[in-house]
Amino acid sequence: MKIDLNADLGEGYGPWKMGDDEALLDVITSANVACGYHAGDPVIMDRVVRAAAHRGIDVGAHVGFPDLLGFGRRQMQADPAELSRYVLYQLGALAAIAKVAGTRVGHLSFHGALGNMSAVDYQLAAPMVQAVAAFDPSITICATTDTQIEVAARECGLRVANAFLADRAYENDGTLVSRKKAGAVIESPAAVLARVEQLIADGTVTTIDGQRLAIDVQQILVHGDTPGAVDLARAVRRSIESHGGEVAPLSALF
Amino acid sequence: MKIDLNADLGEGYGPWKMGDDEALLDVITSANVACGYHAGDPVIMDRVVRAAAHRGIDVGAHVGFPDLLGFGRRQMQADPAELSRYVLYQLGALAAIAKVAGTRVGHLSFHGALGNMSAVDYQLAAPMVQAVAAFDPSITICATTDTQIEVAARECGLRVANAFLADRAYENDGTLVSRKKAGAVIESPAAVLARVEQLIADGTVTTIDGQRLAIDVQQILVHGDTPGAVDLARAVRRSIESHGGEVAPLSALF
Amino acid sequence: MKIDLNADLGEGYGPWKMGDDEALLDVITSANVACGYHAGDPVIMDRVVRAAAHRGIDVGAHVGFPDLLGFGRRQMQADPAELSRYVLYQLGALAAIAKVAGTRVGHLSFHGALGNMSAVDYQLAAPMVQAVAAFDPSITICATTDTQIEVAARECGLRVANAFLADRAYENDGTLVSRKKAGAVIESPAAVLARVEQLIADGTVTTIDGQRLAIDVQQILVHGDTPGAVDLARAVRRSIESHGGEVAPLSALF
Amino acid sequence: MKIDLNADLGEGYGPWKMGDDEALLDVITSANVACGYHAGDPVIMDRVVRAAAHRGIDVGAHVGFPDLLGFGRRQMQADPAELSRYVLYQLGALAAIAKVAGTRVGHLSFHGALGNMSAVDYQLAAPMVQAVAAFDPSITICATTDTQIEVAARECGLRVANAFLADRAYENDGTLVSRKKAGAVIESPAAVLARVEQLIADGTVTTIDGQRLAIDVQQILVHGDTPGAVDLARAVRRSIESHGGEVAPLSALF
Repeated sequence: MKIDLNADLGEGYGPWKMGDDEALLDVITSANVACGYHAGDPVIMDRVVRAAAHRGIDVGAHVGFPDLLGFGRRQMQADPAELSRYVLYQLGALAAIAKVAGTRVGHLSFHGALGNMSAVDYQLAAPMVQAVAAFDPSITICATTDTQIEVAARECGLRVANAFLADRAYENDGTLVSRKKAGAVIESPAAVLARVEQLIADGTVTTIDGQRLAIDVQQILVHGDTPGAVDLARAVRRSIESHGGEVAPLSALF
Repeated sequence: MKIDLNADLGEGYGPWKMGDDEALLDVITSANVACGYHAGDPVIMDRVVRAAAHRGIDVGAHVGFPDLLGFGRRQMQADPAELSRYVLYQLGALAAIAKVAGTRVGHLSFHGALGNMSAVDYQLAAPMVQAVAAFDPSITICATTDTQIEVAARECGLRVANAFLADRAYENDGTLVSRKKAGAVIESPAAVLARVEQLIADGTVTTIDGQRLAIDVQQILVHGDTPGAVDLARAVRRSIESHGGEVAPLSALF
Repeated sequence: MKIDLNADLGEGYGPWKMGDDEALLDVITSANVACGYHAGDPVIMDRVVRAAAHRGIDVGAHVGFPDLLGFGRRQMQADPAELSRYVLYQLGALAAIAKVAGTRVGHLSFHGALGNMSAVDYQLAAPMVQAVAAFDPSITICATTDTQIEVAARECGLRVANAFLADRAYENDGTLVSRKKAGAVIESPAAVLARVEQLIADGTVTTIDGQRLAIDVQQILVHGDTPGAVDLARAVRRSIESHGGEVAPLSALF
Repeated sequence: MKIDLNADLGEGYGPWKMGDDEALLDVITSANVACGYHAGDPVIMDRVVRAAAHRGIDVGAHVGFPDLLGFGRRQMQADPAELSRYVLYQLGALAAIAKVAGTRVGHLSFHGALGNMSAVDYQLAAPMVQAVAAFDPSITICATTDTQIEVAARECGLRVANAFLADRAYENDGTLVSRKKAGAVIESPAAVLARVEQLIADGTVTTIDGQRLAIDVQQILVHGDTPGAVDLARAVRRSIESHGGEVAPLSALF
């Protein structure tokens, strides 16, 4: 089983850093790069993209709300048509930086509140993914399974990569347990690793109700901005490789 | 004589407007579109680009300092390598919006203080135009004659369009009279029109010292954000056409 | 009957203008000044405050979400405790500018989406008005009748000025008809003026159901950013004065 | 000898942190708090101010250029009158937050490029310190000796605290050696400590030319955003106390 190991990078801004991009770049196979709206700036974007290109890591756009102060984590009631232009702006900015750095933007994912809102709102998701498709129909949309993002992306012919969130509990229908419920987040690194091993071994996840559910995923998302994140990412990669899996960038999976 | 009639558009931001873009779009043949750093936002950029595409008007990127509050008119001592990333970010953002609107970014000019500083500083101009060339070598750089922008642009193989500023006085060497000197700006619409007629008639401008200087220009820049601007732009166009000239977008001139 | 004639001013930003502040300043008796979050900047704030002080017009803080791009009109799911700091930041900034200009901030109102959300959400309104009270208990909160803003403000001992929106329809309980319903906004200037006359004459408004409802208001809010706004504001003032009313700043009413 | 131990705090923004504010707050006696223009936001400002007030530490405003992306370290050619309004805006915002937190803004210093530019330009420094004096004449201006900031501040009757930068070399006239010259920055912690000891022992600094120069300073500035900064700050404090000096907030020195 080949799987992409993916993380959010370039989440600093100006003089400020977040997470250890350099260390993660030695572990992952694809990076979601913040594009200046919720985090990231042209200098940081350029640095991450060049470092990724140098290591053969896939580069994707991580697009969000225009809210540096809130890191794109606050819901905003913005007009869907306007949001689709914001997405295009961020995507194009990164695409230019990537091109000059000798690589390209191969995938796109939605950050924070923009991701959460569009996951459950087709009217919000559709104009955004349609704008992506109009810009470059070869871009892969990264989304969790059965979200409105996935529905809208497939409708306009975009490839979708489904992400496994190893540190999040799943419902029986394959959706994520809401963060408002107890047990939504798996805190223990050992438990997270056990879930990765199970996925690699037989393609299943054990749901919050104890059912063993088959899931079809192409990438595992690791977080970079928590203490111990890099060690956990390394452990996840070792776990994949020692259980007969293989990590590979998204572009090598399709 | 064919010449491009050019103006800066899309200089609003969020709820704020500047100039009468709609009226100017019926007069000019190419537009420099602000890209969100000194003015402009994705929604405004999209609106201007679609309106330009609809009329067959060329679209260019108008890139500036990250200073909405100062409208990009204040000098900033930013690192040239960092500025080149800012340019790429703005250019890429507009390029994506243009592509989805069915057109392309064909030229680029530097706004305000960024233009003034790079006109006289090769170390500043070179990384920026090199970044443009690396992104798309078919982009034309718009600059006044003999600036360091022109020098650097030609060095990396970019086409240069020299602009005639009908409302600015010229020195005998073809450079603009500094705004600090008396007579630098031609206030009278009649005098501006007379200068356009002379340019169309015999390709010359009368310098501040009274010499008649041959200048090789491909575009006339009209301003959009002053009272009477649209009327003057219309008069300039009529003047060109009634003196045997023809207006044409930059892309039709080379 | 003495009543305050109130408008939102200083809603430009950097090079951009909105509305005709100068003309309105000759008509109104109190101004709500934008404080840099949804509009306004220190230079504009200073200019408006000095012009108001010069004419004996009351100055108030018009506080909003940190969203220039959306003009503070988009709902944001921000933490109430954090919002209370944003309010304090904006209020303090204006208070310093007002003090140096020889006047003071005597009232405060909530702009756009922040006003709409806190009008119906006590948990949101309370921390904000408590912060205002802790900064200066003599500040008057401007709010429409029976909102959670009014409830929370009275609870912490702040004076409340109830505003009459002459161009908005009222329900029988004195609340505003939702903008989503037909007839919510009174478009005709003549109808707006008739409502002002009725208010001055007998202190009532005719509700959307045709009932004559007594309302207790201390200010009439006129809008400044629509075509004809200044003419309508002048007509409202003349109407008040010709029907036996008198305009006076808020500070002269209590 | 009593001396204030001073550091720049609250230099994060939104989700981003800079330096270890908590640790420094246990060492220093006064804090310069970023006010949202080059760093800092209302939530961070509130947190730092409350923590300072809780420990009896003086709070000051650290005002800078509106340039988050460049952390206020890039020169901007802004109009001095406009800058004085920016200063007032930042100062007032912090003053409101401080008042509600039960303390007050007792001093002010200029950050980064704004400090460097106004140190040598009276036309720039004067409107800014005059605005401070007009807002609150009891505020102390912190500045290095013989700068135009000091000159302008004394002219308008403001108290000035001269800062000793223990990690910067001095010229024979008491000004700082330019960062462009070799030896401008003292890198070795041991050398920094030795300079502090000498200052406490006999009130002198050894200049870059080897002369022993008497200097009259009221505060020692320690940096917070470099590796080892907190350890060095603790060592400076121990050095002061073990050489017969005493640390005390600025407000206890005058």
